[in-house]
Amino acid sequence: MALRPVSAAEIESLAIGAWILGTGGGGSPYLALLNMRKLYREGTVVSLLDPMDLADDARVAVVSNMGAPLVGQERLTDPRTIAHAVRMMEEYRACRFDAVMSLEIGGGNSLQPFMAAAELGLPVVDADCMGRAFPEAQMTSFAIHDLRMYPLALVDVRDNAVIVAQAASWKWMERLSRTACVAVGSIASTCKAPRTGKEVKECGILYSTSKAIRLGQTVQAARRAHRDPIEAIIEAEGGRLIFTGKIADVARRATEGFLRGTATIDGLGDDRGRRFELAFQNEFAVGWLDGVPRVMTPDLICVMDSVSGEAIGTETLRYGQRVSVVALPAPAVLLTPKGLEHVGPRAFGYDLAFHSVFA
Amino acid sequence: MALRPVSAAEIESLAIGAWILGTGGGGSPYLALLNMRKLYREGTVVSLLDPMDLADDARVAVVSNMGAPLVGQERLTDPRTIAHAVRMMEEYRACRFDAVMSLEIGGGNSLQPFMAAAELGLPVVDADCMGRAFPEAQMTSFAIHDLRMYPLALVDVRDNAVIVAQAASWKWMERLSRTACVAVGSIASTCKAPRTGKEVKECGILYSTSKAIRLGQTVQAARRAHRDPIEAIIEAEGGRLIFTGKIADVARRATEGFLRGTATIDGLGDDRGRRFELAFQNEFAVGWLDGVPRVMTPDLICVMDSVSGEAIGTETLRYGQRVSVVALPAPAVLLTPKGLEHVGPRAFGYDLAFHSVFA
Repeated sequence: MALRPVSAAEIESLAIGAWILGTGGGGSPYLALLNMRKLYREGTVVSLLDPMDLADDARVAVVSNMGAPLVGQERLTDPRTIAHAVRMMEEYRACRFDAVMSLEIGGGNSLQPFMAAAELGLPVVDADCMGRAFPEAQMTSFAIHDLRMYPLALVDVRDNAVIVAQAASWKWMERLSRTACVAVGSIASTCKAPRTGKEVKECGILYSTSKAIRLGQTVQAARRAHRDPIEAIIEAEGGRLIFTGKIADVARRATEGFLRGTATIDGLGDDRGRRFELAFQNEFAVGWLDGVPRVMTPDLICVMDSVSGEAIGTETLRYGQRVSVVALPAPAVLLTPKGLEHVGPRAFGYDLAFHSVFA
Repeated sequence: MALRPVSAAEIESLAIGAWILGTGGGGSPYLALLNMRKLYREGTVVSLLDPMDLADDARVAVVSNMGAPLVGQERLTDPRTIAHAVRMMEEYRACRFDAVMSLEIGGGNSLQPFMAAAELGLPVVDADCMGRAFPEAQMTSFAIHDLRMYPLALVDVRDNAVIVAQAASWKWMERLSRTACVAVGSIASTCKAPRTGKEVKECGILYSTSKAIRLGQTVQAARRAHRDPIEAIIEAEGGRLIFTGKIADVARRATEGFLRGTATIDGLGDDRGRRFELAFQNEFAVGWLDGVPRVMTPDLICVMDSVSGEAIGTETLRYGQRVSVVALPAPAVLLTPKGLEHVGPRAFGYDLAFHSVFA
């Protein structure tokens, strides 16, 4: 079984790469990274498991923190809470998990399975089911493949725990888990519907953990070499530079368990005199160049500090930041007609036919 | 074991008596009564169990429909849904229940255990844990006795099911179950935290089903004898006539999973020239006579049609109804200092020291 230890350095790279793949959401990895540094200092080493080495009947816990990223800045994340969600599910299903994986490789949720794995002594599967971050439960490759959406276990930092034992649809699962999340303060740790090894191999987005680590290493290497990290990312990942400028305005509100809003960027350099507008629901959903749709979900819309290549989340956008907007290609499953129903611009309420910047 | 069949005639009396004990809430028993009539026509007979005959380790399912009574008028209740909540709990706890009991004897929730019992082939315990109806989870004798508040199973008429597996407090249980209830449309069938026979015997409000049947029979007997049913109720139950008049105004809104509002009654007869105002949150909470608090929770505030003695729920109050407001004594546990913390006027947001009309 291809099980390899993940080094402390790789955890650092993962945090950088996953924050870029978060497309503004998934929560800042910083607080989870602090937890991981502490665990590694204490001797923890988490192993990464090749998903193709999962037995068909292996039991995989799919974890994430859900809620409004802004709230995640105030209620600090910790390994115990995410592990508690996994244990609740084990109790409910009267089973033991063989491995943990990430719901979404974007943002802090890339590190949640590592925190859970450290606490539970399990390996992390090198996969997720978004290949990025998305705000809602039905926006996963598992949902696109019509896998069962329940049960879901949700816990908070008090002693509250809710199990969504049945849901009439993926949208109902989203609604039921979201209202529970809002009730406990718009941030909660969740263990989603358990998956078998077979389901992960057939319906997961594979090797996305490795990809995020690699992306982080690309940024780190560019910084060390005094190269432009934005250029390095675009080159390594086959990305496209969409816009460069200075943030001129941000409107942001935490509502219904999400962080929603818009950001306006005034062009600099080649883009001087032009204006770019971004709309987000936790993650960046659509970008308009001078009022014309230019880039849209599920293409990854990544906003980064133009100098450091550090990703900027929707909760940390602020006036005056010099940013580059880069598009990265989405996993193939998201681009299928079924995939676009779940994660295309119309799924976010924008009456736009999806057009990829990579088409 | 004192287990006796409940006749179809007693079910009719129960519906009448429980609607009075509902103090405006618990939901109209009418739709549940139609279900029970059908079940009895088909040969069902539900048995009533003397709570003192419960074995200490007997397992009792405590059921109720929760939500805004107004919505219960539109989404029709049925035996399958409440039985589904009990079965969810049996699955979750991997146990079988020995009997079903009512959370609240007031309103339609007096009949929910009968519907569940008919579906599941179980007896109904002659008890509840409010002795009336109240809007919130922590307003029970079980909460006043500090029994454990979780788990709770909540289901709707689709295929949604939520289990509140842990709650940090009774208020958290209220909040978590309420938000789930609102998410599924402000009406849901619930199986509350399972109770042992010992807990029911020590902390339940005993013989309240019999009491509701008896109260209904009092009204029916008065009607047959062309006596005033209001007088008959007051005499039989040691009640107090508070006000008689005509409803002049109703303000009502379904909000946060509750039906909240006020009703104004203009006096008739001895009360002519006076005005009575009632505030409700599902149930009547406080009544003011010419602006002065006259009657308040946990005293039972019952509003009835002055001629028929039929109770009027907060969802069916309307302009022009000739009504009598009667106070009935509350169960002793609700009048203790701990009880008043849970169900006194301050628990409903009124800055009033409790004063009973029976003091």
